[in-house]
Amino acid sequence: MTASFVRPEPPYYAVIITTWPTEDLEGYAAMSKRMAELGEAQPGYLGRESLTGEDGQDLVVIYYADEASITAWKADSEHLEAQRLGRERWYASYTVEIARVERAYAFSRD
Amino acid sequence: MTASFVRPEPPYYAVIITTWPTEDLEGYAAMSKRMAELGEAQPGYLGRESLTGEDGQDLVVIYYADEASITAWKADSEHLEAQRLGRERWYASYTVEIARVERAYAFSRD
Repeated sequence: MTASFVRPEPPYYAVIITTWPTEDLEGYAAMSKRMAELGEAQPGYLGRESLTGEDGQDLVVIYYADEASITAWKADSEHLEAQRLGRERWYASYTVEIARVERAYAFSRD
Repeated sequence: MTASFVRPEPPYYAVIITTWPTEDLEGYAAMSKRMAELGEAQPGYLGRESLTGEDGQDLVVIYYADEASITAWKADSEHLEAQRLGRERWYASYTVEIARVERAYAFSRD
Protein backbone atom coordinates (compact mmCIF):
# COMPACT_ATOMS: atom_id res chain seq x y z
CA MET A 1 0.00 0.00 0.00
CA THR A 2 1.17 3.51 -0.72
CA ALA A 3 -0.10 6.99 -0.02
CA SER A 4 -3.64 7.64 -1.21
CA PHE A 5 -2.49 10.49 -3.45
CA VAL A 6 0.69 12.28 -4.41
CA ARG A 7 1.17 15.42 -2.34
CA PRO A 8 2.32 18.64 -4.02
CA GLU A 9 5.17 20.65 -2.54
CA PRO A 10 4.07 22.61 0.55
CA PRO A 11 2.46 24.91 1.30
CA TYR A 12 -1.00 23.45 0.83
CA TYR A 13 -3.99 23.09 3.14
CA ALA A 14 -5.45 20.28 5.23
CA VAL A 15 -8.93 20.17 6.73
CA ILE A 16 -8.80 17.82 9.70
CA ILE A 17 -12.27 16.55 10.61
CA THR A 18 -12.99 14.38 13.62
CA THR A 19 -16.59 13.28 14.15
CA TRP A 20 -18.38 11.19 16.76
CA PRO A 21 -21.80 9.87 15.76
CA THR A 22 -25.13 9.83 17.56
CA GLU A 23 -27.29 6.69 17.61
CA ASP A 24 -29.37 8.04 14.72
CA LEU A 25 -27.39 7.49 11.54
CA GLU A 26 -30.31 7.21 9.13
CA GLY A 27 -29.34 8.91 5.90
CA TYR A 28 -25.79 9.56 7.07
CA ALA A 29 -23.96 7.20 4.72
CA ALA A 30 -25.70 8.56 1.63
CA MET A 31 -25.06 12.17 2.67
CA SER A 32 -21.46 11.42 3.53
CA LYS A 33 -20.90 9.86 0.10
CA ARG A 34 -22.58 12.81 -1.63
CA MET A 35 -20.48 15.34 0.30
CA ALA A 36 -17.28 13.42 -0.50
CA GLU A 37 -18.16 13.58 -4.21
CA LEU A 38 -18.99 17.29 -4.07
CA GLY A 39 -15.88 18.05 -2.01
CA GLU A 40 -13.71 16.28 -4.58
CA ALA A 41 -15.28 18.26 -7.39
CA GLN A 42 -14.28 21.57 -5.75
CA PRO A 43 -11.49 23.56 -7.41
CA GLY A 44 -8.25 23.05 -5.52
CA TYR A 45 -9.10 19.56 -4.22
CA LEU A 46 -5.95 17.46 -3.85
CA GLY A 47 -6.97 14.26 -2.09
CA ARG A 48 -7.97 12.75 1.24
CA GLU A 49 -7.04 10.29 3.95
CA SER A 50 -9.91 8.80 5.90
CA LEU A 51 -10.50 6.12 8.53
CA THR A 52 -13.49 5.02 10.59
CA GLY A 53 -13.13 3.51 14.05
CA GLU A 54 -15.11 0.63 15.54
CA ASP A 55 -17.16 3.04 17.64
CA GLY A 56 -18.09 5.08 14.55
CA GLN A 57 -15.54 7.84 15.10
CA ASP A 58 -14.38 9.24 11.77
CA LEU A 59 -11.00 10.84 11.22
CA VAL A 60 -10.76 12.51 7.83
CA VAL A 61 -8.08 14.78 6.41
CA ILE A 62 -9.07 16.52 3.18
CA TYR A 63 -6.40 18.37 1.28
CA TYR A 64 -6.83 21.52 -0.81
CA ALA A 65 -4.37 23.67 -2.71
CA ASP A 66 -5.36 26.87 -0.94
CA GLU A 67 -7.57 28.41 1.70
CA ALA A 68 -9.95 30.02 -0.80
CA SER A 69 -11.02 26.55 -2.01
CA ILE A 70 -11.90 25.57 1.54
CA THR A 71 -13.84 28.75 2.22
CA ALA A 72 -15.84 28.32 -1.00
CA TRP A 73 -16.67 24.69 -0.18
CA LYS A 74 -17.69 25.52 3.38
CA ALA A 75 -20.23 28.05 2.02
CA ASP A 76 -21.67 25.77 -0.72
CA SER A 77 -25.44 25.68 -0.18
CA GLU A 78 -25.86 21.89 -0.38
CA HIS A 79 -22.91 21.52 1.97
CA LEU A 80 -24.41 24.03 4.42
CA GLU A 81 -27.62 21.96 4.53
CA ALA A 82 -25.57 18.81 5.19
CA GLN A 83 -23.75 20.59 8.01
CA ARG A 84 -27.08 21.62 9.52
CA LEU A 85 -28.44 18.06 9.32
CA GLY A 86 -25.20 16.79 10.83
CA ARG A 87 -25.63 18.97 13.89
CA GLU A 88 -29.33 18.17 14.13
CA ARG A 89 -29.11 14.37 13.75
CA TRP A 90 -25.90 12.56 13.11
CA TYR A 91 -23.12 14.11 15.12
CA ALA A 92 -22.75 13.89 18.88
CA SER A 93 -19.72 16.12 18.42
CA TYR A 94 -17.12 17.11 15.90
CA THR A 95 -14.04 19.22 15.44
CA VAL A 96 -12.97 20.83 12.17
CA GLU A 97 -9.51 22.34 11.85
CA ILE A 98 -8.09 24.29 8.91
CA ALA A 99 -4.33 23.87 8.80
CA ARG A 100 -1.57 25.07 6.50
CA VAL A 101 0.85 22.25 5.67
CA GLU A 102 4.29 23.81 5.92
CA ARG A 103 6.56 20.78 5.60
CA ALA A 104 6.09 17.20 4.47
CA TYR A 105 8.18 14.03 4.43
CA ALA A 106 7.41 10.85 2.58
CA PHE A 107 8.92 7.39 2.48
CA SER A 108 8.17 4.52 0.17
CA ARG A 109 9.85 1.14 0.04
CA ASP A 110 9.41 0.92 -3.72
CA MET B 1 -18.40 10.44 22.67
CA THR B 2 -16.67 13.80 22.56
CA ALA B 3 -13.35 15.13 21.25
CA SER B 4 -10.31 13.33 22.60
CA PHE B 5 -8.92 16.53 24.09
CA VAL B 6 -9.85 20.18 24.40
CA ARG B 7 -8.13 22.23 21.72
CA PRO B 8 -6.56 25.57 22.59
CA GLU B 9 -7.27 28.65 20.50
CA PRO B 10 -5.39 28.56 17.15
CA PRO B 11 -2.68 28.86 16.11
CA TYR B 12 -1.24 25.50 17.17
CA TYR B 13 0.41 22.70 15.24
CA ALA B 14 -0.70 19.34 13.91
CA VAL B 15 1.56 16.52 12.76
CA ILE B 16 -0.46 14.40 10.33
CA ILE B 17 1.02 10.91 10.00
CA THR B 18 -0.25 8.30 7.55
CA THR B 19 1.47 4.91 7.55
CA TRP B 20 1.06 1.70 5.59
CA PRO B 21 2.62 -1.40 7.13
CA THR B 22 4.78 -4.15 5.68
CA GLU B 23 4.08 -7.81 6.42
CA ASP B 24 6.76 -7.76 9.15
CA LEU B 25 5.23 -6.09 12.20
CA GLU B 26 7.31 -7.84 14.86
CA GLY B 27 8.13 -5.34 17.56
CA TYR B 28 5.96 -2.65 16.02
CA ALA B 29 3.20 -2.50 18.63
CA ALA B 30 5.66 -2.16 21.51
CA MET B 31 7.65 0.53 19.72
CA SER B 32 4.51 2.38 18.70
CA LYS B 33 3.30 2.41 22.32
CA ARG B 34 6.71 3.60 23.58
CA MET B 35 6.83 6.39 20.99
CA ALA B 36 3.30 7.51 21.89
CA GLU B 37 4.35 7.74 25.56
CA LEU B 38 7.54 9.65 24.74
CA GLY B 39 5.71 11.94 22.31
CA GLU B 40 3.14 12.78 24.98
CA ALA B 41 5.89 13.60 27.47
CA GLN B 42 7.36 16.23 25.10
CA PRO B 43 6.93 19.88 26.07
CA GLY B 44 4.14 21.44 24.05
CA TYR B 45 2.18 18.19 23.58
CA LEU B 46 -1.56 18.91 23.38
CA GLY B 47 -3.24 15.64 22.39
CA ARG B 48 -3.89 13.27 19.53
CA GLU B 49 -6.51 11.69 17.30
CA SER B 50 -5.69 8.26 15.95
CA LEU B 51 -7.39 5.48 13.98
CA THR B 52 -6.22 2.21 12.45
CA GLY B 53 -7.83 0.72 9.35
CA GLU B 54 -8.59 -2.93 8.66
CA ASP B 55 -5.63 -3.16 6.31
CA GLY B 56 -3.27 -1.79 8.97
CA GLN B 57 -3.18 1.75 7.66
CA ASP B 58 -2.71 4.21 10.52
CA LEU B 59 -3.93 7.78 10.45
CA VAL B 60 -2.64 9.79 13.40
CA VAL B 61 -2.81 13.50 14.10
CA ILE B 62 -0.62 14.64 16.97
CA TYR B 63 -1.03 18.17 18.22
CA TYR B 64 1.65 20.44 19.66
CA ALA B 65 1.59 24.03 20.87
CA ASP B 66 4.39 25.16 18.59
CA GLU B 67 6.81 24.12 15.89
CA ALA B 68 9.84 24.04 18.21
CA SER B 69 8.26 21.17 20.18
CA ILE B 70 7.88 19.15 16.98
CA THR B 71 11.44 19.81 15.84
CA ALA B 72 12.81 18.77 19.23
CA TRP B 73 10.79 15.55 19.26
CA LYS B 74 11.80 14.67 15.69
CA ALA B 75 15.47 14.88 16.73
CA ASP B 76 15.10 12.86 19.97
CA SER B 77 17.66 10.04 19.79
CA GLU B 78 15.31 7.21 20.79
CA HIS B 79 12.77 8.55 18.32
CA LEU B 80 15.39 8.70 15.54
CA GLU B 81 16.19 5.03 16.13
CA ALA B 82 12.48 4.18 15.96
CA GLN B 83 12.19 6.11 12.70
CA ARG B 84 15.14 4.17 11.28
CA LEU B 85 13.62 0.83 12.31
CA GLY B 86 10.30 1.91 10.83
CA ARG B 87 11.87 2.48 7.43
CA GLU B 88 13.89 -0.74 7.68
CA ARG B 89 11.11 -3.07 8.80
CA TRP B 90 7.63 -1.89 9.53
CA TYR B 91 6.59 0.70 7.00
CA ALA B 92 5.85 0.05 3.35
CA SER B 93 5.33 3.79 3.08
CA TYR B 94 4.40 6.81 5.13
CA THR B 95 3.75 10.51 4.90
CA VAL B 96 4.39 13.02 7.67
CA GLU B 97 3.04 16.54 7.37
CA ILE B 98 3.66 19.46 9.72
CA ALA B 99 0.73 21.84 9.60
CA ARG B 100 -0.18 25.07 11.36
CA VAL B 101 -3.80 25.02 12.54
CA GLU B 102 -5.15 28.46 11.68
CA ARG B 103 -8.86 28.06 12.41
CA ALA B 104 -10.95 25.52 14.28
CA TYR B 105 -14.65 24.84 14.79
CA ALA B 106 -16.18 22.50 17.31
CA PHE B 107 -19.68 21.23 17.97
CA SER B 108 -20.97 19.21 20.87
CA ARG B 109 -24.54 18.13 21.54
CA ASP B 110 -24.07 18.44 25.31
